[in-house]
Amino acid sequence: MDPRTAPRGGLADWLAREIRSAIADGRLATGSRLPATRTLADELRVSRGVVTEAYRRLGEDGHVAGRRRGGTVVLAVPHRPAPAPAPPPEAPAARHLFTAPPGPDVFEALRAAPARVDLTPGRPDLAAFPRTAWLRAERAALADLSPAAFGYGDPRGAPALREAVARWLSRNRGINAGPDDVMIVNGTAQALRLLVDVLRAEGVDRVAVEDPGSLGVRQHLHPLPTPPVPVDAQGVRVDALRAEGAAAVLLTPAHQFPTGVVLGGERRRALMEWAREGGLIIEDDYDAEHRYDRPAVPALRAQLPEHVCYTGSVSKLLAPALRIGWLLAPRAYRPALVDARRLADLGSAALPQASLARLMESGDLERHLRLIRGHHRRRRDAMIAGIRTHLPGATVHGAAAGLHLTLTWPHEADTDAAGGTAADADTALATAALRSGIKVHPLSWHTQRPHPPGLVLGYAAVPPAPLTEALAELGRLARAQNIRGLREGPGDRR
Amino acid sequence: MDPRTAPRGGLADWLAREIRSAIADGRLATGSRLPATRTLADELRVSRGVVTEAYRRLGEDGHVAGRRRGGTVVLAVPHRPAPAPAPPPEAPAARHLFTAPPGPDVFEALRAAPARVDLTPGRPDLAAFPRTAWLRAERAALADLSPAAFGYGDPRGAPALREAVARWLSRNRGINAGPDDVMIVNGTAQALRLLVDVLRAEGVDRVAVEDPGSLGVRQHLHPLPTPPVPVDAQGVRVDALRAEGAAAVLLTPAHQFPTGVVLGGERRRALMEWAREGGLIIEDDYDAEHRYDRPAVPALRAQLPEHVCYTGSVSKLLAPALRIGWLLAPRAYRPALVDARRLADLGSAALPQASLARLMESGDLERHLRLIRGHHRRRRDAMIAGIRTHLPGATVHGAAAGLHLTLTWPHEADTDAAGGTAADADTALATAALRSGIKVHPLSWHTQRPHPPGLVLGYAAVPPAPLTEALAELGRLARAQNIRGLREGPGDRR
Repeated sequence: MDPRTAPRGGLADWLAREIRSAIADGRLATGSRLPATRTLADELRVSRGVVTEAYRRLGEDGHVAGRRRGGTVVLAVPHRPAPAPAPPPEAPAARHLFTAPPGPDVFEALRAAPARVDLTPGRPDLAAFPRTAWLRAERAALADLSPAAFGYGDPRGAPALREAVARWLSRNRGINAGPDDVMIVNGTAQALRLLVDVLRAEGVDRVAVEDPGSLGVRQHLHPLPTPPVPVDAQGVRVDALRAEGAAAVLLTPAHQFPTGVVLGGERRRALMEWAREGGLIIEDDYDAEHRYDRPAVPALRAQLPEHVCYTGSVSKLLAPALRIGWLLAPRAYRPALVDARRLADLGSAALPQASLARLMESGDLERHLRLIRGHHRRRRDAMIAGIRTHLPGATVHGAAAGLHLTLTWPHEADTDAAGGTAADADTALATAALRSGIKVHPLSWHTQRPHPPGLVLGYAAVPPAPLTEALAELGRLARAQNIRGLREGPGDRR
Repeated sequence: MDPRTAPRGGLADWLAREIRSAIADGRLATGSRLPATRTLADELRVSRGVVTEAYRRLGEDGHVAGRRRGGTVVLAVPHRPAPAPAPPPEAPAARHLFTAPPGPDVFEALRAAPARVDLTPGRPDLAAFPRTAWLRAERAALADLSPAAFGYGDPRGAPALREAVARWLSRNRGINAGPDDVMIVNGTAQALRLLVDVLRAEGVDRVAVEDPGSLGVRQHLHPLPTPPVPVDAQGVRVDALRAEGAAAVLLTPAHQFPTGVVLGGERRRALMEWAREGGLIIEDDYDAEHRYDRPAVPALRAQLPEHVCYTGSVSKLLAPALRIGWLLAPRAYRPALVDARRLADLGSAALPQASLARLMESGDLERHLRLIRGHHRRRRDAMIAGIRTHLPGATVHGAAAGLHLTLTWPHEADTDAAGGTAADADTALATAALRSGIKVHPLSWHTQRPHPPGLVLGYAAVPPAPLTEALAELGRLARAQNIRGLREGPGDRR
């Protein structure tokens, strides 16, 4: 390694890149220790800060980990996927994924498609999963659990976790609840499933949803119809909700998916009135802990405990693969929800519940959240910079919080996209992106009514370098498809 | 401790009892190390074998654990529950639990009732849960999983676990299956739930069940009716199944619940014919790994892959609280089952799946099974001895395998039990038992048609000493209720 080959001003970047490539081609073996920062700095004749910064970046993208006494160690699995074999242009996923309306297995099909950079929304920084803290919590839980705790448990969840979640929600979401108000579920997906079962049995025949609004959520409300209610800059339009006449609505008030709008004060009051008159709100608080500019607005549940079914999970705090979430329902619904849960699978597994309770109570989860919030903010900044450079015409929505942003552009019927609707335009770009090894969601997946074309881009799980690279590629594709609205325009209007 | 106070011939017993009481009253602190066997033997002037045997018994009932280099250490939680406050005679659970037909929450109500000895069936030796091996497997899994594995996964389960389960079933159950045939589920309860969803959508209007047969299983088939088909000494009566006319039947062929009958060869052939003519068999292979006398008969699934939905779990191998099971369905049902699973909760958690796969592939699970099979056999023997002594009239069923046995007695309408039906007789004894701090299932919970009174008694989770004590108490209660059929009779007719 010769720092004289480094570009000016980018020594840390250069050093991180060099080490990454040494790991990739095996010169630095898994488990081996990097030199102490002082030693390497002396050797390369750079300042120690350069080495520290390079190690920090390598840590952030999962190539190395700091071990307290063990120095900095090369990890088995670098975060960045091995440069995938460029998918053949005729790979089935790339060919069919975006041409038909998305079916129930569309997210699995997209996951299965090969790609270099995965910008699908909904995942936090997974390389930062606190493996050591989790194992520590599990060891303590295993030492502590009584034999009876390995038997069948309470379908509402383990008391220790329900207590920890109640405290977490009080600290972070302004919700005043006790363990009896909390039901542990296998993620928000199961919470919605149980609610659908119970609401259908009560005669609810549809659940209104925001538009734009999450495709995944609409799928989970199956078989109930999900009439769309428009979202504007203040959030869901309560007048339109009233006009629709549905008895229940699913909302994402703290950071609307996918637009990022925060529900305005006037709308909050109107919604509360609607609920007090008998409407039921399902509040999907999917990423409220990830606000960058100021604390998130309190949950609707905090003000309307008897009119809101509140659901959240650790999917965006820790990892979707944990499949742990919670549901706080009005008292009237609880017996039926417990019956539905017992019938579904008898309840959640004991060990992960005990471990998560410890992680929450020890402060480890709060520390982890602070850490990834820093990662996410830097990644968001890299994505916005990439958009400004490579897609200067795009309008960016919802970048003040969360794990994703949405960009839109004015629809022009005369682009190269076949057909000519807005949905044709964004699925055409998503198709081309997937062919180039970049996964994105077309905004049209998440809309039911006419809407400008757009992309929903997750940045939280991808380090800055591949993020920037992916944006450059999206810019090239937009030029190739002759999308004027992305090339030129008013820029970031968020 | 003075071995001269020990009863003749029972030195190991005496020593184990002395140490137990030293742990109970705090003279031996949690985490402290027991003396080396040689040291203690010298000190007490007994043979070293006596000390080794005493330590083995303490290990078996969860008071101590052997640590490779750390000697034998006192555990935090002795297996035997602290002598619970004697439940007041008017404790709500004891009063109402057995008087009405069992509702959907009956098992939770029974779990919540205080008791000294829990003889409810369905749990293996939970004190023996391989905590160290599990933590080792989890550590290895955490070190190995890629960041992407912490995201959303395959609703059919993690490939590594599906592979491990396929191999496990091939080794242990004669089933020839690959990973694509296996779907991981959150326990058998979820497998039944998914099947009910799919079968109802296909127009199946009821699922025939064995009688006697598991109450819990019938509850999980809700809302489908579960017409009873009688079980005799050869297993389910296929002629009666044909006469019933249901399109599907749920069976426990390897060790019928609760009678323990093994499906006979003639019946197997008749069932296969019924299935080939279009019948669907749901095979609940709930405890086939726990055969004491000879290897279990192969699963029906081994011979009829396209007519059997096979389900099993680790609930009886490791612990119900893991909530991990599997479902092997005929190809025709798989797409609908995957859709149902995605809708239910998107799939199982990644970490426990990865850990279990390692436990299966490393041989740790096989070793654990050998260990607990020994425990279970000794506990079964203690239970049978207790029955012979204290309930000499009882007929014992199904003691050659599994985690429970069933005892019945001839019905006499003139016992002290109010009413006078067989169900009144066994629920009266179960009620009295619970008041005395002993939990049992009345056989009538697990029957739909007239049947002699009986009890279903789990022995696997309870060490020999409290087992014997509980049987003595049941004997006293049977005498108090003047149940002639338990006091005198033909003895063990299994």
